[in-house]
Amino acid sequence: MPMTFQNRLAETAAAVDQLIEELLPDDGSRLRQAMRYASLGQGKRLRPFFVAETASLLSVDARQALQVGAALEFVHCYSLVHDDLPSMDNDDLRRGQPTTHRKFDEATAILAGDALLTYAFEILARPETHPSASTRIKLVQALSSAAGENGMVGGQMLDILAETSNFATLEDISKMQLGKTGALFRFACVASSIMADANPKPFHQYAEHIGLAFQIVDDILDVTSTAKTLGKATQKDTAKGKATFVDFLGLDGARAAAQNHIELAKQALAPFGSRADRMCAAADFVVDRQK
Amino acid sequence: MPMTFQNRLAETAAAVDQLIEELLPDDGSRLRQAMRYASLGQGKRLRPFFVAETASLLSVDARQALQVGAALEFVHCYSLVHDDLPSMDNDDLRRGQPTTHRKFDEATAILAGDALLTYAFEILARPETHPSASTRIKLVQALSSAAGENGMVGGQMLDILAETSNFATLEDISKMQLGKTGALFRFACVASSIMADANPKPFHQYAEHIGLAFQIVDDILDVTSTAKTLGKATQKDTAKGKATFVDFLGLDGARAAAQNHIELAKQALAPFGSRADRMCAAADFVVDRQK
Repeated sequence: MPMTFQNRLAETAAAVDQLIEELLPDDGSRLRQAMRYASLGQGKRLRPFFVAETASLLSVDARQALQVGAALEFVHCYSLVHDDLPSMDNDDLRRGQPTTHRKFDEATAILAGDALLTYAFEILARPETHPSASTRIKLVQALSSAAGENGMVGGQMLDILAETSNFATLEDISKMQLGKTGALFRFACVASSIMADANPKPFHQYAEHIGLAFQIVDDILDVTSTAKTLGKATQKDTAKGKATFVDFLGLDGARAAAQNHIELAKQALAPFGSRADRMCAAADFVVDRQK
Repeated sequence: MPMTFQNRLAETAAAVDQLIEELLPDDGSRLRQAMRYASLGQGKRLRPFFVAETASLLSVDARQALQVGAALEFVHCYSLVHDDLPSMDNDDLRRGQPTTHRKFDEATAILAGDALLTYAFEILARPETHPSASTRIKLVQALSSAAGENGMVGGQMLDILAETSNFATLEDISKMQLGKTGALFRFACVASSIMADANPKPFHQYAEHIGLAFQIVDDILDVTSTAKTLGKATQKDTAKGKATFVDFLGLDGARAAAQNHIELAKQALAPFGSRADRMCAAADFVVDRQK
């Protein structure tokens, strides 16, 4: 019987945690400890899962996919550290634990984030990640493009600006989301096609829909969940008067929209048949998750 | 008559500014404007000069060297933006102008820094920077290593920690400096040898000594200069009770040490004879500068 999605997710998370331990052994320095605090722990490791799972579909070496997954996770974790800062979202809790600037201090958190982002590119540049320099440089291109001004950082800026000028249309929110959450999901889903020199299109489509569904569900959970379940503050968007998918679509409409994106995500992988079952289960997980 | 160092420095600065204008045209967005504010302006562009000048010595294409210089300058500028933040050095002035978080706000400054750092790797990954993917990936390796935990960011962390625990020995200060200022100087001086596949050793030695001399002079200027001349606050280290090269060596001793490093830097390039004249003049400039 093939491994279930949940088992595979847990397996990838354990492997990524172990690799991060190898990449960032505790050397006693404050900076290293903050980098470890920010990147080890209770994350779902959904992005490395996507890299690992698409690697299976495309016969990419699992160890190489894991290196890319760890680099990507470093970028994700750095973004959480910076987004949590007092001048940004000002969050005290993340996954039920003090945020990095609360556990250490702001300066250390900013530097730990900077170091994690920089390390991600160093990892992608290593021969362990892929024997071909040309492939590695494509990964650097794809990740820098996904993480930067036209991707994640740009999305975060739009999100912050929305606190004062608000989103006028559903398109504005989608644009923000495509950067803030979507860009790293896209990289997670297409990285293996870069490594295998395969057609990225189905993975690109899958990622777009998963990313949107993920953000819609985030907005739903912000309204319906509790801080205890979520491990972070809730009702934040309402408190800030910031429009969300839920404001535009209503709770039921948002749920339907998320479900629709999940179906479209699954359709994108139809050519892979039952081999894409765990990717489809991952899509379901994105809408069904409680945190 | 060959071009003087000062003319060449000015020429490189103008070329870098123009390339940055091309790389970051004003699109009206707040993030872009903060990135432009942080990276365009009155910098000496010393790091791109080193890339350009060593490129001449090694017959590296000038336009490719300029791409690397611009990427490096983005990393340098991002580090200034983050270092100036209230939770770090808390500076209001930089080159006589409001720092980025003063001109915009903290969140925008943090994100502009993040975006500049990320963009640097995107630029290095482009074929315009070098036709060989293998060379580009070596540049990514070298820059990420220079900019990260074991380079610039690590040095900045040591510098911040020194405010509470102080530097015990001259070696501690040197270690901090080797990271904080030295690592990007090293990259600036060896990047062309990577592009030319040449022996990096003389450039490495030159850079080590230039970097140390630069930091020693910074410490001297912090004591002897005025905010008006320097374009930023002075006497900061004394105010924070942080030991500097001047504390360990005295003003005269520090001046002698800087001069000694400059002579060693010049010696490292002796094999290039008079072709290295402008690099030697650059070394003199580092100790003679008034800001």
